[in-house]
Amino acid sequence: MIKYPNNIQKNNLTKIHYFGNRGMSLENDLNDTNSYYLEKDIAIIHKKPTPIQVVDTKNGKIINAYFKEPSTTDYNGLYRGYYIDFEAKETNNESNFSLKNIHKHQLIHMEKILNHGGICFLIVRFIKLDKTFLLFADKLINYIKESERKSIPISFFKEEGHSIKYNLKIKVDYLSIVDQYGGIK
Amino acid sequence: MIKYPNNIQKNNLTKIHYFGNRGMSLENDLNDTNSYYLEKDIAIIHKKPTPIQVVDTKNGKIINAYFKEPSTTDYNGLYRGYYIDFEAKETNNESNFSLKNIHKHQLIHMEKILNHGGICFLIVRFIKLDKTFLLFADKLINYIKESERKSIPISFFKEEGHSIKYNLKIKVDYLSIVDQYGGIK
Repeated sequence: MIKYPNNIQKNNLTKIHYFGNRGMSLENDLNDTNSYYLEKDIAIIHKKPTPIQVVDTKNGKIINAYFKEPSTTDYNGLYRGYYIDFEAKETNNESNFSLKNIHKHQLIHMEKILNHGGICFLIVRFIKLDKTFLLFADKLINYIKESERKSIPISFFKEEGHSIKYNLKIKVDYLSIVDQYGGIK
Repeated sequence: MIKYPNNIQKNNLTKIHYFGNRGMSLENDLNDTNSYYLEKDIAIIHKKPTPIQVVDTKNGKIINAYFKEPSTTDYNGLYRGYYIDFEAKETNNESNFSLKNIHKHQLIHMEKILNHGGICFLIVRFIKLDKTFLLFADKLINYIKESERKSIPISFFKEEGHSIKYNLKIKVDYLSIVDQYGGIK
């Protein structure tokens, strides 16, 4: 075991970082990231509000409503003149990402975005492995069309996707992947 | 008075059209328009869900929640590779559009969209005049910066904006204005 200053062992450091990351949900990390992009005038990307059907209100307060199924992806916005669109999901599974997490109309939406010149992807976090991947929508759509499986193995994310490194300043710096592999001119 | 076939007078025709149009809110007309664009594979533009803060749920039903103030515009999407972003408002006033209808953070958002290469505008319907205008965000922002007034007179929309003609098939065909004047290459 390597000795660090003040007798902190490497494993402990890793653990602190590990839990420091895991303590926040992917949604919170993405909100932080998008706030950072907005503040630094890098991109204007927002999470869409959860669609809610309001049934009844009383004195301006909602007293009866229910959650609706989203018909598009959760995040969209503008970066370097490009339309950006993505969905983000977490999973507790350590080896597979179940395709039940993605609705059919979300896939149709993603395909349309690609056809109209937008940049579209899926961000998946494997919580227990503390790994976050970006998978561009063309690869996701091709996988679903060609595979009989109802889930995507983590090996596919490793080979065809891009790992997003955790960073204290930019928690999920997905635009660095878009810069490199998003087909931006 | 010009006589029309079957003795229908022109005024009556106008009236029928007038109420036919006015019966629907601008929001409904825009939803119809966006559905048409989506079906015909012209553009992918959606209204964002109204932001709602959920306080309490019971058996999956929301029993306590309240409306939050939107921090961006209501509509965004993708058209011909361009990021599209707009706000839509109706007014019962016949001569002015009150700037109270637009929040400061919405204006900041619009300015950012322009700076990052998006196409951004405001759609205003003067209900009683049955007139709908598109005003590009640069003109809106300049007006607010240069004018001391707390409202925009309809004359400004006539001179600097673009009238959107009502059309049975495409109720508010704002993309025809974007095609002509939106700076699309």
